[in-house]
Amino acid sequence: MVDVNASTLQVVIEISATSAFALSGLIAGARKKLDAFGVFVVTGVSAFGGGTLRDVLLDRRPFFWVEHANWIWLMLLICMLAMLFMRNKHIQLTERAILIPDALGLGLYAALGTQIALQQQLPVIVCTLMGVMTAVFGGVLRDIFCNEIPKAFSDYQPYAVIAFLGGLLVLLLNQFNLAPWICIFIPAALMTLLRILAIYFEWRLPGWKIESN
Amino acid sequence: MVDVNASTLQVVIEISATSAFALSGLIAGARKKLDAFGVFVVTGVSAFGGGTLRDVLLDRRPFFWVEHANWIWLMLLICMLAMLFMRNKHIQLTERAILIPDALGLGLYAALGTQIALQQQLPVIVCTLMGVMTAVFGGVLRDIFCNEIPKAFSDYQPYAVIAFLGGLLVLLLNQFNLAPWICIFIPAALMTLLRILAIYFEWRLPGWKIESN
Amino acid sequence: MVDVNASTLQVVIEISATSAFALSGLIAGARKKLDAFGVFVVTGVSAFGGGTLRDVLLDRRPFFWVEHANWIWLMLLICMLAMLFMRNKHIQLTERAILIPDALGLGLYAALGTQIALQQQLPVIVCTLMGVMTAVFGGVLRDIFCNEIPKAFSDYQPYAVIAFLGGLLVLLLNQFNLAPWICIFIPAALMTLLRILAIYFEWRLPGWKIESN
Repeated sequence: MVDVNASTLQVVIEISATSAFALSGLIAGARKKLDAFGVFVVTGVSAFGGGTLRDVLLDRRPFFWVEHANWIWLMLLICMLAMLFMRNKHIQLTERAILIPDALGLGLYAALGTQIALQQQLPVIVCTLMGVMTAVFGGVLRDIFCNEIPKAFSDYQPYAVIAFLGGLLVLLLNQFNLAPWICIFIPAALMTLLRILAIYFEWRLPGWKIESN
Repeated sequence: MVDVNASTLQVVIEISATSAFALSGLIAGARKKLDAFGVFVVTGVSAFGGGTLRDVLLDRRPFFWVEHANWIWLMLLICMLAMLFMRNKHIQLTERAILIPDALGLGLYAALGTQIALQQQLPVIVCTLMGVMTAVFGGVLRDIFCNEIPKAFSDYQPYAVIAFLGGLLVLLLNQFNLAPWICIFIPAALMTLLRILAIYFEWRLPGWKIESN
Repeated sequence: MVDVNASTLQVVIEISATSAFALSGLIAGARKKLDAFGVFVVTGVSAFGGGTLRDVLLDRRPFFWVEHANWIWLMLLICMLAMLFMRNKHIQLTERAILIPDALGLGLYAALGTQIALQQQLPVIVCTLMGVMTAVFGGVLRDIFCNEIPKAFSDYQPYAVIAFLGGLLVLLLNQFNLAPWICIFIPAALMTLLRILAIYFEWRLPGWKIESN
């Protein structure tokens, strides 16, 4: 029987969230008909790009994917299997299947990223932005590599905004000297919930008052 | 009565220059109809991207926007106000209004970036390029995020070239053991002047001798 | 008479390989009709971008182009000469002329990049990817700056794949405690040979089994 403690739970969430981020890259690569190397890079960047950019800015080493290099082998295998066996119908199936794990990833990564920045005693807004970056910039880099305007910048869905609010909550909870895992998991759960509600009710951010030119 | 010394002057120039860079991002985001998060990122990258990339390459910390995190709150506020109140006519007004502060930014940032690299005793050409990067790469990253060929690469305006020449002048003046602020402000003023002349007289860089294919 | 030892050979290969990478950027810039600054940046990024990104990720300084800053002056000169004297026919000539030096660059850079990462005792897959990055990401950044999907991601040529296999061979040879230059040059030569065969026989990577949408 497995001893389900917070740590085991975190690993399960991490794996499913990272897989969801990676699969969003795999799908983007398949849509663009990238070759094996392109798919591999775009998949990897979707999964690890946000955290890596955060760590470059915060000057932290080693990166997650250097410490857990086995994940890269796994990713390589999945990319090759996908190129062999993926058909059109699988794309839509996969897109729906990753919505929940992706929402888990949004919550966990934004909360973890904020907490990591807090350890360096950075200002509130910087910690929050590091959380947002962790959750969102994998997808941003994915879209830049695919030569698209990043969806996170242009789809008017409250995704980064949820990460931003959740990050502020992480910082607020830290004021009360709660255990770190509480400061991470409560905001992470709330962000995941908000994201699922946002998808379900099709919430949209307010738009511009200007006409196209 | 304010004691107008070099330092106060620098702060005034810095604020107006950074605002001009930020507003160029805000306008680009509005043109692309980015959502709130997209506009915020593109605005921030336009303002701070060049200096941040320079600091990553030179391995310097903390970044400007980490030390002066209040600016990010201000930027966030301005982005939200812009989304609420900006109309088409404001875009053209803003574009004309930022030409002079942008020219100030070109001069100040290129000179400061060169001087900062000089403190690390890097080769002449590297110092100069760090100055150019500080002044120009915010706009380059802005255009990449907006999925455009960077204007700085393709508009044939002598912008980066002015930053390059100004950087060389910074290094030359440093040879004479002048006070750092002189080595910065004389080239900065000259670059600003040159940029304004370049706009006024519509100077263009020479083109290619090849036909389009 | 020149004493042709491994070191002299390496310098000759390095110069011709870096020139080939740089020229691929120059041609891309000419095709896009970039201005002088754009051509210079795209040329420089093609030549030094891969190694620089690797060094940023591995937190290594100084960069190659900081230690050998004279190369930048040379590159600047070549860019200006190209803008003055390059005609359409030269583009095709240059493209054919750089195929072999580019294959040399693929081999040498992938092997060197892998060996450099190995000195930091990183995991096998990470070392290999650092080699791939060194050889391939200059071209990737070139294409992103030119607002194209990176050719390395989408042309189905076995280029990065060769770098990947060659990197694994570098690591294998290092297991036998051979001299470093052997661990570098044997895989480098094999990669170059494979690349030339791949061009000659028009080898292609397998494609997707999905239809376009």
